[in-house]
Amino acid sequence: MNVKISLPDGSVREYPQGVKGSEIASSISEGLARVSLAIEVNGEVWDLSRPITTDASIKILTWNDKSGKTTFWHSSAHLLAEALEALYPGVKFGTGPAIENGFYYDVDLNGKPFGDDDLAAVEAKMKELAKHDSQYVRKDVSKADALKYFTEKGDPYKIEIINGLEDGKITFYQQGGFTDLCIGPHIPNTGFIKAVKLLNVAGAYWRNNENNKMLTRIYGITFPKAKELEEYLHLIEEAKKRDHRKLGKELELFAFSERVGMGLPLWLPKGTILRERLEQFMRKAQIKAGYDPVVTPHIGSKALYVTSGHYEKYGKDSFQPIHTPDEGEEFLLKPMNCPHHCEIYRTKPRSYRDLPVRLAEFGTVYRYEQSGELHGLTRVRGFTQDDAHIFCRPDQVKEEFVKVIDLVLHVFKSLGFENYTAQVSLRDPENKAKYIGEDSAWEKAEAAIQEAADERGLSTVAVKGEAAFYGPKLDFMVKDALGRQWQLGTIQVDYNLPIRFELEYVGSDNQKHTPVMIHRAPFGSLERFVAVLIEHCAGNFPLWLAPDQIAVLPISERFNDYAKLVYEKLKEQDIRGLLDDRDEKIGRKIRDAETKKIPFMLIVGEKEAGDQMVAVRKHGQGDQGSVPLEEFVNRFRIECSAPV
Amino acid sequence: MNVKISLPDGSVREYPQGVKGSEIASSISEGLARVSLAIEVNGEVWDLSRPITTDASIKILTWNDKSGKTTFWHSSAHLLAEALEALYPGVKFGTGPAIENGFYYDVDLNGKPFGDDDLAAVEAKMKELAKHDSQYVRKDVSKADALKYFTEKGDPYKIEIINGLEDGKITFYQQGGFTDLCIGPHIPNTGFIKAVKLLNVAGAYWRNNENNKMLTRIYGITFPKAKELEEYLHLIEEAKKRDHRKLGKELELFAFSERVGMGLPLWLPKGTILRERLEQFMRKAQIKAGYDPVVTPHIGSKALYVTSGHYEKYGKDSFQPIHTPDEGEEFLLKPMNCPHHCEIYRTKPRSYRDLPVRLAEFGTVYRYEQSGELHGLTRVRGFTQDDAHIFCRPDQVKEEFVKVIDLVLHVFKSLGFENYTAQVSLRDPENKAKYIGEDSAWEKAEAAIQEAADERGLSTVAVKGEAAFYGPKLDFMVKDALGRQWQLGTIQVDYNLPIRFELEYVGSDNQKHTPVMIHRAPFGSLERFVAVLIEHCAGNFPLWLAPDQIAVLPISERFNDYAKLVYEKLKEQDIRGLLDDRDEKIGRKIRDAETKKIPFMLIVGEKEAGDQMVAVRKHGQGDQGSVPLEEFVNRFRIECSAPV
Repeated sequence: MNVKISLPDGSVREYPQGVKGSEIASSISEGLARVSLAIEVNGEVWDLSRPITTDASIKILTWNDKSGKTTFWHSSAHLLAEALEALYPGVKFGTGPAIENGFYYDVDLNGKPFGDDDLAAVEAKMKELAKHDSQYVRKDVSKADALKYFTEKGDPYKIEIINGLEDGKITFYQQGGFTDLCIGPHIPNTGFIKAVKLLNVAGAYWRNNENNKMLTRIYGITFPKAKELEEYLHLIEEAKKRDHRKLGKELELFAFSERVGMGLPLWLPKGTILRERLEQFMRKAQIKAGYDPVVTPHIGSKALYVTSGHYEKYGKDSFQPIHTPDEGEEFLLKPMNCPHHCEIYRTKPRSYRDLPVRLAEFGTVYRYEQSGELHGLTRVRGFTQDDAHIFCRPDQVKEEFVKVIDLVLHVFKSLGFENYTAQVSLRDPENKAKYIGEDSAWEKAEAAIQEAADERGLSTVAVKGEAAFYGPKLDFMVKDALGRQWQLGTIQVDYNLPIRFELEYVGSDNQKHTPVMIHRAPFGSLERFVAVLIEHCAGNFPLWLAPDQIAVLPISERFNDYAKLVYEKLKEQDIRGLLDDRDEKIGRKIRDAETKKIPFMLIVGEKEAGDQMVAVRKHGQGDQGSVPLEEFVNRFRIECSAPV
Repeated sequence: MNVKISLPDGSVREYPQGVKGSEIASSISEGLARVSLAIEVNGEVWDLSRPITTDASIKILTWNDKSGKTTFWHSSAHLLAEALEALYPGVKFGTGPAIENGFYYDVDLNGKPFGDDDLAAVEAKMKELAKHDSQYVRKDVSKADALKYFTEKGDPYKIEIINGLEDGKITFYQQGGFTDLCIGPHIPNTGFIKAVKLLNVAGAYWRNNENNKMLTRIYGITFPKAKELEEYLHLIEEAKKRDHRKLGKELELFAFSERVGMGLPLWLPKGTILRERLEQFMRKAQIKAGYDPVVTPHIGSKALYVTSGHYEKYGKDSFQPIHTPDEGEEFLLKPMNCPHHCEIYRTKPRSYRDLPVRLAEFGTVYRYEQSGELHGLTRVRGFTQDDAHIFCRPDQVKEEFVKVIDLVLHVFKSLGFENYTAQVSLRDPENKAKYIGEDSAWEKAEAAIQEAADERGLSTVAVKGEAAFYGPKLDFMVKDALGRQWQLGTIQVDYNLPIRFELEYVGSDNQKHTPVMIHRAPFGSLERFVAVLIEHCAGNFPLWLAPDQIAVLPISERFNDYAKLVYEKLKEQDIRGLLDDRDEKIGRKIRDAETKKIPFMLIVGEKEAGDQMVAVRKHGQGDQGSVPLEEFVNRFRIECSAPV
């Protein structure tokens, strides 16, 4: 008897019942078979060696699939366990899962000390064992047999786990001489694991309960190719160097104060200059694009958020209401700017001729996050959106999308993000009832978004069922210099708020109509954008954004006067910088300016002062030769201006 | 026997015991006697006819003194009562005090209807009675006699008042045929009242209790000269026209929404442009003056305000703490920016060489006000300060004051406020214990402020005892175009916060020292400043601030294309404005642009389109002739730029 196997490309093949993933992979191509790690069967990940007995949709998983990696790392955790058992007989095992990057195993070494220094030996053992090409073998066991095995072995942790399991659903996996209680799946054999790195050791309470014993957690990562490990380690190293929390501190961009509150950044002078430059850049671009700036308060009455629906949805999990001392009013810190902008729309009657109305605000919003979730500027409790809401007629949606796409791409280009894709999030066509708004409006808006994206040559992926209940949207994904993906910039259609706020315009038919609302924020949150930007450019900001663009460095105190003249001349032209007139050696001054990542250094000594010249040095690039001061200032002023 | 009378100029004169104020006035000059209204005796205001029996410090009060005006208006309320009694026999009287501008009397007309139309007759009667030159005569009466008088007259309100008074302290005043229960004082006679205007009628519950009877409140104002009444009525009229709430709505600068919350302004696009221009102007001026911009959140943990002392002082009467859903943290809406700036100062060690550190922020703060106290933009619950805090060494206080004064005067000059004075608020030298900070520091700071003010030629009044407990200050008072005084701009020394926040710098002696903090805000609150500015210039903003600088008005649709070209050319140069291409007569377009107070109108028709010209029209000034477009743009671009 045959089973029908549907492949990801939509084709259906027949195989004998009991066919294995590995056989399907081979039947597709030997190349695929060589790199297959596991198989997804009807949405579940299986070993390649497990027989398929019914019709199924499948996908062969390789290193390029997230589930492929997860399986690879889970199998690597077993390899780590095998190595530990070889080196530390009697070691007891907790759990050893795959994590986002790599895996760990929690182990009980019976009180034997184990630290980072001990990792190399274990790593070597893992590499040695990997070469045995030991197969990962799945075996169903009864609860009684499972308990018997681990009782004989003397592993109380596994026994505790088994006691919580249902009989008939217990499996073991065995590779080489090591057997583990495990639900799987695993890769075919240890030979796939070509590169191993154990990263560090930490303590972890058994079952995350501080009343339990502290186990030793060993973190590691593995790859199918040695080169991939090298690249990964380099990336880790680079990411550490570029960590915006580290650079933010070193470059004095922002700080946190416990007394002000966790997750509430204080923007220091240099960070504020950067931030204000970004705002000014966006402000200009938006005015050019026909936006109207507005300013609204950071609180709103509870009634405002009841109207918008935000209170019902987020009220309980958010910052709690602010009461007044005597009049029983209640306010909320604003989590979004849209309700305020709807109220501005309502301040006067609108005609179809007035639309689109585009209200833009650098609006600071506050959203509660648990303290454990906070992370530098990427996860904060207060942040400023470059927010705008476009109120338009249904027939204007496409044109507005095109304009917003242009604005977003202008931002990416100006900030050096060359690598981006976009996702169009559509309705689930099988389940139209769960969306608000008319069918025809959705169809038009979805088509408009796709057409707008196509018109601008955006590479997009359309995903059905990913739209919000109130409208379809377009999300931009940006790759940074380290190849990490960031979601930046969203354009969201909204049929809901205009109804909740009873927004209207008088159409050419003299009847009242409901406008469509578009939410959009090219930066998203300024805080998060700055964090991504810092990590993308490693703190070497484009000249027009650099908090200090220039450092004037007199070779000795004798030339401080001329250096001051140079500095003042630059300042007159709104060029930002500093004058380092300390009594220090020039080498030290240069090193300090390099550390501060100041793009240009102007070194002045006898010759420069005499000829009204400056010796130019570029950050990370060294000496650029001498030029007349006047010429430098003129050239520099142009280079410094923000892109338009 | 004589009494010693000290005059305001410090001189002391001897007069016979029992001398009257009127006699002292005559002894000084007959001119003074003619305009004296009352006399201040040891800080209390008396009738001029009351004998002085002990040594005393006195001041003769005229119309130029606040207490002189109050007495004049209180006497006018009695004149109103006399007139009412003549016209409405049997009328009963509540109370009739002087108020900030004029007076009122609450009366019971026994159910007789009385409205604004009835005011003219009463006013005429008042003028007639005033000409009788009736003296205001003071008489001590016993409680029994007082009750007897009003029982016979049949006035239950006065009886109720007398019942609450202590026997032996009751006085009547009588002028013409009218007698009132009154503590006084009053002007000599009704002849001083040359100009009378009854303004309006309102209802008012007896003793402000809604369970009591509703009385008729009649408002009026009087003057010693007819011309002053004319001026006053003109001022009222002008003030009404310039009311920033009215202009704010007409010019679409800002709005309020009940759903957002009372006292929380929404800045509309045109208001936002104005506001952003002001911010940008200040930002540039501050960068030039060596300030560092910072940005801080709009909330802070309760601990921050406990440290600063704000919680203890204002916590109860302010917006109440914001709780988090699970972690028991408490935050407050920030009422001031200073605690946040102190925390920024603390982010790194500071040396005496680093000072002054000047941290500037357009910081939006929230302070609870009762809803009844709210008024347009002048009294709001959320406002943005052009705030900065200067952390300096004690020896830098004077220089910093000079710099801040320069900045404040630059603002006044740039915004057209020509008329200002300043007040230096000093310690009470008799009560040094109630002030924080060292004696010598206070002396130096007070001297520094005065010297700085003198150096900049400021006209100042020094007031002892007006300093805050934490430091002396300098306040600017500005007169607007209608002669009304506004307090704008404060510079405040603070010895308190640096101690509370344990701020430090390392001195040249290598020891730790506490810096001095200076708070300053030239605009004060941007909201209040814009309100004052609107009323000062009646919505005719300086060109560089005007939300719309220009309106391009094609004479007919035939010239819309050329008009659009003109408009685009202006926009390219960042000139703000609008193109009125409606199908309307040019007269209507001009009227609309005038209503919107747009400074310049460019009218284009056949001739202009043909010769690439524009016909220039200035708001309120009419036709300015035609000029070539190119020339206009170049000239205008320069005129439009903000003052530096």
